[in-house]
Amino acid sequence: MTTTISELQEKAVRARAAAAQLAALTRADKDRILVAMAKAIEANAAEILAANASDVENVTQKKSNAPVDRLLLNEKRIAEMAAALRHVAALTDPVGEVLDGWRLPNGLEITKVRVPLGVIGIIYESRPNVTVDAAALCLKSGNATILRGGSDAILSNICLVKIITEAGEKVGLPAGAIQLIETTDRAAVGLLMQMDKYIDVLIPRGGHDLIQRVKREARIPVIETGEGNCHVYVDASADLDMAERVTVNAKCSRPSVCNAAEKLLVHQAIAAEFLPRVGKALQDAGVELRACERSLPYLKGAVAATEEDWPTEYLAMIMAVKVVDSVEEAVAHISRYGTRHSDAIITRDFTAAQCFTHGVDSAAVYVNTSTRFTDGGEFGFGAEIGISNQKLHARGPMGLAELTSYKYIVVGEGQIRG
Amino acid sequence: MTTTISELQEKAVRARAAAAQLAALTRADKDRILVAMAKAIEANAAEILAANASDVENVTQKKSNAPVDRLLLNEKRIAEMAAALRHVAALTDPVGEVLDGWRLPNGLEITKVRVPLGVIGIIYESRPNVTVDAAALCLKSGNATILRGGSDAILSNICLVKIITEAGEKVGLPAGAIQLIETTDRAAVGLLMQMDKYIDVLIPRGGHDLIQRVKREARIPVIETGEGNCHVYVDASADLDMAERVTVNAKCSRPSVCNAAEKLLVHQAIAAEFLPRVGKALQDAGVELRACERSLPYLKGAVAATEEDWPTEYLAMIMAVKVVDSVEEAVAHISRYGTRHSDAIITRDFTAAQCFTHGVDSAAVYVNTSTRFTDGGEFGFGAEIGISNQKLHARGPMGLAELTSYKYIVVGEGQIRG
Repeated sequence: MTTTISELQEKAVRARAAAAQLAALTRADKDRILVAMAKAIEANAAEILAANASDVENVTQKKSNAPVDRLLLNEKRIAEMAAALRHVAALTDPVGEVLDGWRLPNGLEITKVRVPLGVIGIIYESRPNVTVDAAALCLKSGNATILRGGSDAILSNICLVKIITEAGEKVGLPAGAIQLIETTDRAAVGLLMQMDKYIDVLIPRGGHDLIQRVKREARIPVIETGEGNCHVYVDASADLDMAERVTVNAKCSRPSVCNAAEKLLVHQAIAAEFLPRVGKALQDAGVELRACERSLPYLKGAVAATEEDWPTEYLAMIMAVKVVDSVEEAVAHISRYGTRHSDAIITRDFTAAQCFTHGVDSAAVYVNTSTRFTDGGEFGFGAEIGISNQKLHARGPMGLAELTSYKYIVVGEGQIRG
Repeated sequence: MTTTISELQEKAVRARAAAAQLAALTRADKDRILVAMAKAIEANAAEILAANASDVENVTQKKSNAPVDRLLLNEKRIAEMAAALRHVAALTDPVGEVLDGWRLPNGLEITKVRVPLGVIGIIYESRPNVTVDAAALCLKSGNATILRGGSDAILSNICLVKIITEAGEKVGLPAGAIQLIETTDRAAVGLLMQMDKYIDVLIPRGGHDLIQRVKREARIPVIETGEGNCHVYVDASADLDMAERVTVNAKCSRPSVCNAAEKLLVHQAIAAEFLPRVGKALQDAGVELRACERSLPYLKGAVAATEEDWPTEYLAMIMAVKVVDSVEEAVAHISRYGTRHSDAIITRDFTAAQCFTHGVDSAAVYVNTSTRFTDGGEFGFGAEIGISNQKLHARGPMGLAELTSYKYIVVGEGQIRG
């Protein structure tokens, strides 16, 4: 199935029209729609499971041993999708918040009010629950969404979007508010990325190649979600029990995600004491260690790290270890090789902590805790559309507020500019 | 003169290194540098004027009747540049502001702190004073700058950047903090736009073609400054004296800028009374009127508007006029043809004002005042790097705060994620 530019453009025009209506919906309107969607997901579980089974069959036919865990839906995951919709309904509406306001010397009164971004394009891979999550967060923040999911999940996504939009439209969801690109044609993404007249923001969620392609080709502002080559630095003054506990948590609690630690930096003054114990704890948990020249003697069973290790995000049970002479060297190493995502220091020294939090230019800088906390849910945002890896607009975890912009309303009594 | 990728990359690497140092400067450091720059501009006025005279000569040699007003420097304009530097020194430092903070249920303490964006690339045209302005605003907000000015001003820009960086470096400006691309080679811009490893944001300032090129080619996040097809809508209930005064001000006070009004929408109930008088006032000020079918009979000397007029930003003494039946029709017209920059309603009716401020999705929405107030200086930001025409990051006038990002500092006592 191929998509013509006119089909895509029609979707974009509908989304733009829906955006104007969505911006005017009250919280009560939006919550009613979200709850109706949740009920429809539950009521139509059998249909969703059937569509998903076809997706799984198609994937395994193409490649018999393809991994299908992320694609697979079951009763439990459907219940979780419905719960996610109800959870988003329970969150505060960000739209309409007065962010600032002041009076000018000439009497003009300025109010800065939070408004939706408008039309958001979300380009993502595989997991069908992202379809429902992204649609819900965009709706609650008053945005129209154009969804482009992974080809493996196409039938699941078509089914899910049909169910939630039909249920939503019965209780006030504007037509065109949530649309899916119903083709797996790669060219469709290329066309979508050119539609800056209709789409305000693109959010790619997925692997390195997808994000690089969107950055390269898009004419539309992009929020880059991305790589985390995260560091834990254990300072000379650290509580070594805490350092071991935090390092193991940062590395092992979920190694496949962007906030997992990939590198351990250790001050030379404690290297001889700390490295053998943390090395054993990591290896016991199943971590492969790659050690710099100075740490290698303390890490039984580790292999030698190469220059290539320092900038690499493994997303796996691998950790590279380096001995440094000072907190300044740790900061310099992180500046050079890090991805400005999440980095932690373990220390009891106030000056070292200050040096680290000032010097490390990352979305989240941690003192005496794990990098794994970089997450919208953990931060208390209630939900997360992704973790921004850029400094423009939003940095770090993005919740509902990060899916909004603002406008200035200026009220006068006939003032003119001199 | 051509630029190799390695020369540009060297500049970018130096900028990135300078950015780390700039982020750590205190307000006192930065103000001292700005004042030293102002003094150096004043002390070296002769050298600047000589370089500028060469630029002017080169331009007029190429094309004898080329307009040089914007390019030309004189004693007064040099004094204004020095004054602008001192003015930026007097502004509050945005860096370090605590934007938010809270404690999580597990005891982690989160602080959201304002930090510089990092390295900002500014691509602009003609006027050499932009060189000094942009450098000053980026410095005060803690950012390194890579400047790419217009080819006509190349010698003026080289001279200005040499003077301010030499003076600045004597009092603590990090080397590489302010750099100019010293070539007029068009390919250099293309290379610059690919350097997402080193540059955090690009801000193009200039005409439509420049901005479109940057949007199309950049891999780096862009803040689009841009077109203003601004509207004044005069409601049935308007005070017609106010309406006339505001319309003339919005159109005529500076027709070449983006916040000047290009369109006048008039409610049908007052068309017969208001159009003749506002038409005469506009024509007396030198405005060419282009009228819709319904307004044409009331506007002596106007020509008929065509469909092409409605989306057009004239940036000239031209105004198109349209009669509408309601505030809703005005909002719909603005949604369809506007550029979401600045739009005004003149009304005494509360419901009409609410309909307009809610319905018009523009950076600045005005009630009973002129669109010409969309300006960082007028808004009280103290300075302006440009007016954003996008909804991501910053919308409308951008001052120092809009040249910053934030980071989260998270402090714990050994908490790990479950």
